[in-house]
Amino acid sequence: MNHLKRLPKHIGIIPDGNRRWALKKGFEKQDGYKFGIQPGFDLYNLCLKLGIEEMTFYGFTSDNTKRPSLQTKAFQKACVDAVECLANRDADLLVVGNTESPLFPKELLPYTKRTRFGKGLMKVNFLVNYDWNWDLNYSKKNSDVNINDNLIEGIASFDISRIDLIIRWGGRCRLSGFLPIQSIYADFYILDEMWPDYTIEQVYKALEWYQDQDVTLGG
Amino acid sequence: MNHLKRLPKHIGIIPDGNRRWALKKGFEKQDGYKFGIQPGFDLYNLCLKLGIEEMTFYGFTSDNTKRPSLQTKAFQKACVDAVECLANRDADLLVVGNTESPLFPKELLPYTKRTRFGKGLMKVNFLVNYDWNWDLNYSKKNSDVNINDNLIEGIASFDISRIDLIIRWGGRCRLSGFLPIQSIYADFYILDEMWPDYTIEQVYKALEWYQDQDVTLGG
Repeated sequence: MNHLKRLPKHIGIIPDGNRRWALKKGFEKQDGYKFGIQPGFDLYNLCLKLGIEEMTFYGFTSDNTKRPSLQTKAFQKACVDAVECLANRDADLLVVGNTESPLFPKELLPYTKRTRFGKGLMKVNFLVNYDWNWDLNYSKKNSDVNINDNLIEGIASFDISRIDLIIRWGGRCRLSGFLPIQSIYADFYILDEMWPDYTIEQVYKALEWYQDQDVTLGG
Repeated sequence: MNHLKRLPKHIGIIPDGNRRWALKKGFEKQDGYKFGIQPGFDLYNLCLKLGIEEMTFYGFTSDNTKRPSLQTKAFQKACVDAVECLANRDADLLVVGNTESPLFPKELLPYTKRTRFGKGLMKVNFLVNYDWNWDLNYSKKNSDVNINDNLIEGIASFDISRIDLIIRWGGRCRLSGFLPIQSIYADFYILDEMWPDYTIEQVYKALEWYQDQDVTLGG
């Protein structure tokens, strides 16, 4: 780990490929999501050990809820399970998403204000029933959308800071609506493996690649 | 070309690597930009021939103007030259950027309303002194930020539609502030070659890759 001299402060995680993984294993599409919970913890533990300050998981979006109801229920449950388990660890936990929609799981309402669990060693954010449109239009009448020294203003996700590195599983090289403001200067690293096939080595590959990216913010 | 069954309607171009290319050739950094003009035309001609409906070039941003003045002058001039030459072709031309800043080249003011040149065969957009922050805050008091059937509302770049494919030269896998709303569902294809080393084959590689990307918009 000593060769990782330049660590991202904030890592965004797009855990894609659960349904494709399930089909390949002979399961139904919706059965893939529950296999994405353990990888989430393993990744949390690894990032904690490495000293990463903040991480944000892409749970599900309003776009995703247009899928068949069996799938929607499955990824809602996976998000609830993942957040509730993290509440037993050391994390400053925050769930961000549109709570006014019935698709937001009620069990997660207590987490929509940032709460310290245990020693609160890392900021961990979950996007749950997230919608980039909702995020950007949240408080536009009050203040400008802005990033100042990593502090974001004027959007619903204001308490999630600028992202340095986004790691996406499942081979697609796109944002799919993931935190457009926080991602504006982020480096994207794409893994072809599906999210339930997570291994520590994949994250090391991403972090090694990140060593060679210069951060200029356009300057 | 017959195997390209699925063409993107709108391609975003991030022509990065001009300075690194110049240094490698033994030139000064600022000398790279003028070598980026011919590739822009070649690419315009190729996209026209292929039947692409719209393309957007990343000229320069407010972030970029923090660079040394020699470089700023060089990329300003390259943008003016590129736009003025395209005005002799068949294009529905539009320049988008913050015209209230002195860094916006006055020569390009006539192009900040979409204007048809020749047969207007393709929508061609140039971002010049563009700033994502300025874009998103432009008219927030009047309407929500939104995408409806490719029509974008509530931002300065409202007349630039949703982007399907972004091709970036110069090896970096990031947006660097490029049209955050239009890019929300875009697939990114990264080329390691520097922009002045543009070849048609690079674009074919990107378009062939694009065949295998599914467009789900999160559904």
